[in-house]
Amino acid sequence: SQVVVHKGSPRGVHFRRAGPREKVYFKPDEVRACVVTCGGLCPGINTVIREIVCGLNYMYGVDDILGIVGGYRGFYSKNTVKLTPKVVNDIHKRGGTSLLTSRGGHDTIKIVDSIQDRGINQVYIIGGDGTQKGAALIHEEVEKRGMKVAVAGIPKTIDNDIAVIDKSFGFDTAVEEAQRAINAAHVEVECVENGVGVVKLMGRYSGFIAMHATLASRDVDCCLIPESPFYLEGQGGLFQFIESRMKENGHVVIVIAEGAGQEFVAQSIHDVNQKDASGNRLLLDVGLWLSHKIKVWSTSFISFIAIDIDPTYMIRAIPSNASDNIYCTLLAQSAVHGAMAGYTGFTVGPVNGKHAYIPIARVTETQNTVRLTDRMWARLLSSTNQPSFLNSCDDILLQQERVDRDTVDMIHKMKITST
Amino acid sequence: SQVVVHKGSPRGVHFRRAGPREKVYFKPDEVRACVVTCGGLCPGINTVIREIVCGLNYMYGVDDILGIVGGYRGFYSKNTVKLTPKVVNDIHKRGGTSLLTSRGGHDTIKIVDSIQDRGINQVYIIGGDGTQKGAALIHEEVEKRGMKVAVAGIPKTIDNDIAVIDKSFGFDTAVEEAQRAINAAHVEVECVENGVGVVKLMGRYSGFIAMHATLASRDVDCCLIPESPFYLEGQGGLFQFIESRMKENGHVVIVIAEGAGQEFVAQSIHDVNQKDASGNRLLLDVGLWLSHKIKVWSTSFISFIAIDIDPTYMIRAIPSNASDNIYCTLLAQSAVHGAMAGYTGFTVGPVNGKHAYIPIARVTETQNTVRLTDRMWARLLSSTNQPSFLNSCDDILLQQERVDRDTVDMIHKMKITST
Amino acid sequence: SQVVVHKGSPRGVHFRRAGPREKVYFKPDEVRACVVTCGGLCPGINTVIREIVCGLNYMYGVDDILGIVGGYRGFYSKNTVKLTPKVVNDIHKRGGTSLLTSRGGHDTIKIVDSIQDRGINQVYIIGGDGTQKGAALIHEEVEKRGMKVAVAGIPKTIDNDIAVIDKSFGFDTAVEEAQRAINAAHVEVECVENGVGVVKLMGRYSGFIAMHATLASRDVDCCLIPESPFYLEGQGGLFQFIESRMKENGHVVIVIAEGAGQEFVAQSIHDVNQKDASGNRLLLDVGLWLSHKIKVWSTSFISFIAIDIDPTYMIRAIPSNASDNIYCTLLAQSAVHGAMAGYTGFTVGPVNGKHAYIPIARVTETQNTVRLTDRMWARLLSSTNQPSFLNSCDDILLQQERVDRDTVDMIHKMKITST
Amino acid sequence: SQVVVHKGSPRGVHFRRAGPREKVYFKPDEVRACVVTCGGLCPGINTVIREIVCGLNYMYGVDDILGIVGGYRGFYSKNTVKLTPKVVNDIHKRGGTSLLTSRGGHDTIKIVDSIQDRGINQVYIIGGDGTQKGAALIHEEVEKRGMKVAVAGIPKTIDNDIAVIDKSFGFDTAVEEAQRAINAAHVEVECVENGVGVVKLMGRYSGFIAMHATLASRDVDCCLIPESPFYLEGQGGLFQFIESRMKENGHVVIVIAEGAGQEFVAQSIHDVNQKDASGNRLLLDVGLWLSHKIKVWSTSFISFIAIDIDPTYMIRAIPSNASDNIYCTLLAQSAVHGAMAGYTGFTVGPVNGKHAYIPIARVTETQNTVRLTDRMWARLLSSTNQPSFLNSCDDILLQQERVDRDTVDMIHKMKITST
Repeated sequence: SQVVVHKGSPRGVHFRRAGPREKVYFKPDEVRACVVTCGGLCPGINTVIREIVCGLNYMYGVDDILGIVGGYRGFYSKNTVKLTPKVVNDIHKRGGTSLLTSRGGHDTIKIVDSIQDRGINQVYIIGGDGTQKGAALIHEEVEKRGMKVAVAGIPKTIDNDIAVIDKSFGFDTAVEEAQRAINAAHVEVECVENGVGVVKLMGRYSGFIAMHATLASRDVDCCLIPESPFYLEGQGGLFQFIESRMKENGHVVIVIAEGAGQEFVAQSIHDVNQKDASGNRLLLDVGLWLSHKIKVWSTSFISFIAIDIDPTYMIRAIPSNASDNIYCTLLAQSAVHGAMAGYTGFTVGPVNGKHAYIPIARVTETQNTVRLTDRMWARLLSSTNQPSFLNSCDDILLQQERVDRDTVDMIHKMKITST
Repeated sequence: SQVVVHKGSPRGVHFRRAGPREKVYFKPDEVRACVVTCGGLCPGINTVIREIVCGLNYMYGVDDILGIVGGYRGFYSKNTVKLTPKVVNDIHKRGGTSLLTSRGGHDTIKIVDSIQDRGINQVYIIGGDGTQKGAALIHEEVEKRGMKVAVAGIPKTIDNDIAVIDKSFGFDTAVEEAQRAINAAHVEVECVENGVGVVKLMGRYSGFIAMHATLASRDVDCCLIPESPFYLEGQGGLFQFIESRMKENGHVVIVIAEGAGQEFVAQSIHDVNQKDASGNRLLLDVGLWLSHKIKVWSTSFISFIAIDIDPTYMIRAIPSNASDNIYCTLLAQSAVHGAMAGYTGFTVGPVNGKHAYIPIARVTETQNTVRLTDRMWARLLSSTNQPSFLNSCDDILLQQERVDRDTVDMIHKMKITST
Repeated sequence: SQVVVHKGSPRGVHFRRAGPREKVYFKPDEVRACVVTCGGLCPGINTVIREIVCGLNYMYGVDDILGIVGGYRGFYSKNTVKLTPKVVNDIHKRGGTSLLTSRGGHDTIKIVDSIQDRGINQVYIIGGDGTQKGAALIHEEVEKRGMKVAVAGIPKTIDNDIAVIDKSFGFDTAVEEAQRAINAAHVEVECVENGVGVVKLMGRYSGFIAMHATLASRDVDCCLIPESPFYLEGQGGLFQFIESRMKENGHVVIVIAEGAGQEFVAQSIHDVNQKDASGNRLLLDVGLWLSHKIKVWSTSFISFIAIDIDPTYMIRAIPSNASDNIYCTLLAQSAVHGAMAGYTGFTVGPVNGKHAYIPIARVTETQNTVRLTDRMWARLLSSTNQPSFLNSCDDILLQQERVDRDTVDMIHKMKITST
Repeated sequence: SQVVVHKGSPRGVHFRRAGPREKVYFKPDEVRACVVTCGGLCPGINTVIREIVCGLNYMYGVDDILGIVGGYRGFYSKNTVKLTPKVVNDIHKRGGTSLLTSRGGHDTIKIVDSIQDRGINQVYIIGGDGTQKGAALIHEEVEKRGMKVAVAGIPKTIDNDIAVIDKSFGFDTAVEEAQRAINAAHVEVECVENGVGVVKLMGRYSGFIAMHATLASRDVDCCLIPESPFYLEGQGGLFQFIESRMKENGHVVIVIAEGAGQEFVAQSIHDVNQKDASGNRLLLDVGLWLSHKIKVWSTSFISFIAIDIDPTYMIRAIPSNASDNIYCTLLAQSAVHGAMAGYTGFTVGPVNGKHAYIPIARVTETQNTVRLTDRMWARLLSSTNQPSFLNSCDDILLQQERVDRDTVDMIHKMKITST
């Protein structure tokens, strides 16, 4: 079937399944496509660019593909570059984006003017939430002017915080690379007495990278994410947990998403009446803040050796791994099939394991976050045995894992029989 | 819901969803568990061992866990080792299996005697197809004797050829590591004129690793798998493809699964009347066979420089990557929850994305292979543009990708409107 | 010959060459050796520990080897652990130190009491400058008491700032691993307009890691080290160089050793009257300081995007690479041969390419720094074309590279002859 | 001083030290340089190419640099490519050679004709022994014709078997990468009973890579190199050693250089009267031969599980590591300085730690091999404790390590004083 049901959607919300179509809307030799990349770096952007170009060329024979340089503002302020399979052949082995990127610079009118003036009829836009909102505006303006232009968004966010789709590209690579920082922190604190290592990972509003990196590592004692508020002092607080874990193991490794505990960091800034631009930025860094807090707290009884590691830039800039390369290829091919079939105003991504075309607005209207009642977070809690910082947590989990007693199925006999 | 529907199953075949149960069958201090690993190496075995031990200990407070050393025969011919969270703490960072392994050695009676004599009541068996069949026999014998013993299998096969479950552990790591060999082959042949690189990858009966490694690399010209018979000479044959690709690019990279083309290799042995044990083994190696064939064929017009790389052992022996670490953890925890709840004669694994308990027999009765009509193989074909070696292939693909014209849904408006 | 001449030494300063001796001072079954590791982490410590243990055991049959746990204070405050080839067999594959470490804790009397009370007669001390000074004190006290104890130091400093010896262990690995951070910075700034990447590397008093990492990378525009003072503003200053390089390339990568520019950082703290403990530490970080300065400066004309990366902990904690593994093995075997032959109060290390025994005092009396008149720094300057920040620099280089015109040798004929 | 003394040379054999010269022979804007790469792949070729181009451009302002494509035959059968700093900017991050390569194709007259016709006056030739002999012929012909052309050779051999110079580029990287194969073999055999792993490494005539890889790994039981003949059966033979090591450890890892034991392999071919081209090649593979021999031998008492790994292509094709990058940079810069100063018919390389200009003939007249009386081989023997396969070996080592008793020096007091 060509219809994909969105998990947790109200009845009737379906997306069209991505893939090649019998009827191709554009004649290949009339296509003039362009690709633009916006926002921060993320592993896999180059693979997506490569596969849009190769997909258009190999699958449909399209020859006329332009690269917009340096993000949205490249549409109206820079020359374009010609993209061919030869030009993009090796770019997937490098990190970053070969088309360069920038933040902001979105000017709908100027951009659509440029699309019109240059005779572009397929626009592939790789970028995060803000970028996709911009893509929706371009789509609207294009429709308004009655232009026959397909606008396709490929959602990019290393944090995996895009709604509707199962996973964003680069996420697997990021989780893999994060292991390196966690390992380093673990080695450091394992080799001293009372060592505490704090690893700050990406995740402004969602803790997926932190959660998966923690589950993958098996070396992390505690994982703090924006979705799960925590507190430092008192019964059930982080300090109490650190103290008890220190007694057991002699060291503690904490992974914290950058967006976690921002309320404390903000508070801390107010306290020191820190006005300096640089200072502010530093104190807003939750990794520095937490390691500092632990150090200060621990001096009252025995000084812990607290270190903090921030591998963010080292993670963002690496090339995508094998799994993400495959994923990026599927995204790019889906986008190409969609645009060639005449779809527009859509983004691509897997929904419940099947690649689908999704209206752009649908992916920007909400954000994907870790649900504390989901199995993955429950698994993390049972792995780290960290405090839940919630009173009602046990109830939630119990409910979540409740056995469906009424189900009668063929595996009944797998049970050990009582005699 | 706690029921998982098996993709492509006849109506009514459901498995019980894996996870913790309200009712625990075993009292933690009465549990004596054991873990055994059998068959060839695969990334992630140590993570599974670690997480069975940590899961039993952290989640249920079980203290008495034995390691059976050196595969099935360890049950009756060797001392066991004591497994504790401390002992297994770092083993997931090493390749191989810390419990050692062996092939064969299955003697149901002796093994169940040993289980009985040692007072073991939970048996965790990590191994491939043959091993799981052995596990089923142990389960039967245990039932026959009326012993209250939970037998849990964790299916292991780097080839991903186990039926029912979505993916086997170590597969992602294998695909990732295979990139290294493909890259090397690509660099070698790119730097000479008329270079052909043949990379042999694992896959005796199924070509999943070859297919995924090919899709991930973007450097492979042709992927040969056991499921898709090929031929060398004549119209639409491999040689013709190599020749034309060589003219375009100046080099060719071929990935071949070890089980592909075995009919030719066997034929070749017959031809040279090669009886020597060592010789046989060598000629049965399809990578050597293919690179040799290409060399001999090409000498008639211009000698190709053909190299072959076999990274098999280097792939098998590495530690699992982050994604497999998470996966192994889920498998181990599912097995532990199942055994503690009193399930027996089951294996664990994800079915349609949800972890389930599956009767052992179900996973050993058939084998998972690449379906040539599936999207993934279609994507590979459209990426490499290699010959399908099938006359009817186009029909198949067309059918597969047929647009479901009747579906009317909310994304209808995403289409570019004709004026 | 068994004598090693120290480069640049006054005539007559020779060291004894390291290696096995005909005459062994200790009977193997009377040896009770101990190993202790002090100070910060550095790749290769575990290899040194392993090879001391294996060297003593395999080469001399020594069985009685103790590990002192947690640095100097372990002598008098902790239990020792027994070290055997089996125990240390795999430790070289892990970063850190399996004996744990600490800073300080040196109490000569208590330590020598412990050596005496435990009947230890060989003491192997792995640590940096301060640690080696402590080793010298232990040696003196041991001599004073007339104890027959060999005290051997293995100098450890990731910065390569130990005098006399050619290179310290872990240095190669550190330079290799630093590439990862430089690459990340390069990718980040290459993908945006006006990007400046600042990578802070180890090197409190010497810039060897920064210099070698810069030379190895080929992506660095400017390398700042403690030995070469620099200034930001005005003619020939860093800002001018950044501005001109930005015009040429569109991005700039700067590597800075942590000890460089400390006078500016200290000044900066004074300016903002920053008293807070945490704040101080932050501002003292020269990487943060420099990227902040660049940002503020550039806002006056066009805002540069400045990022900073600090890979220090991720470098310190990795296992040693192949080249360092060999090197650590030679150091350990030299130390063992020396101690077994009855030498004491010595450290080991290569001098002009030959492993030698060096009196401890000799390596602690001065520090090794990058000589700005040496070829390596000249090569760096000619590679990066960065400002020398020195007026007289040209003269120095000219003198250094002056052709020795009088030398007449067999390669005269290699010259192209004028006709 | 500008003179470098060759270790072990007869008195009076000196080379001129490499480096910039006061007097430059060529005017930069009259230089037309070319670069050619010949023979097999080796890590670092691209770095050498890059640094010749950047060195000529940055240090001397030379703009006119040609790349000869595909080895020697490219001079007369292919178009050249223009090389600029921009073109070569990132090539050092890729393995292989961006100028392509080939074996043979040397035709002195045609090549020098091409040099003359194209107006080339600097020729940089990167290649192994045969290539350097070709370079010498080009140099002679150039002299004969009275052309003002500088011919500079950069010796390339991953095996480190080039005479006179201390080390060849790519060697460090090869030793590092070989660890991966040795690790895999070790994991494989460690996890089974009676496992024997054979890793074949590069080294047709010299065992440097095998020796260094063995010393670096600490997991190897026996290292076999071409310079040290061995035998399988009888007292002191390899089989006896394997058997005894197997009893101790339960597994054995053997590293063998590809050129070791060729006399046995040839014998073996004669025995089976194997005439087939493919078969010959297979049987000549000493890794396959040895693992086969061990398997057959062991079946008489207990079957060993023997595996063999050949990582050759995977080692050759990787990019150079940091240490080799620096080394390649120095080689390239030396070559550039030499050619610009008007030297010709020279190769570059470090001699006793100092970079020198060496007449080409000097590096091709002999080959560098592992000297069994050198310390490094002695260290290997004492590390692995493998048989020396020599009766007189003890004598050699004793002599080598003899203490120079007469040397009286300042470290005398380091000895423990007898009371």
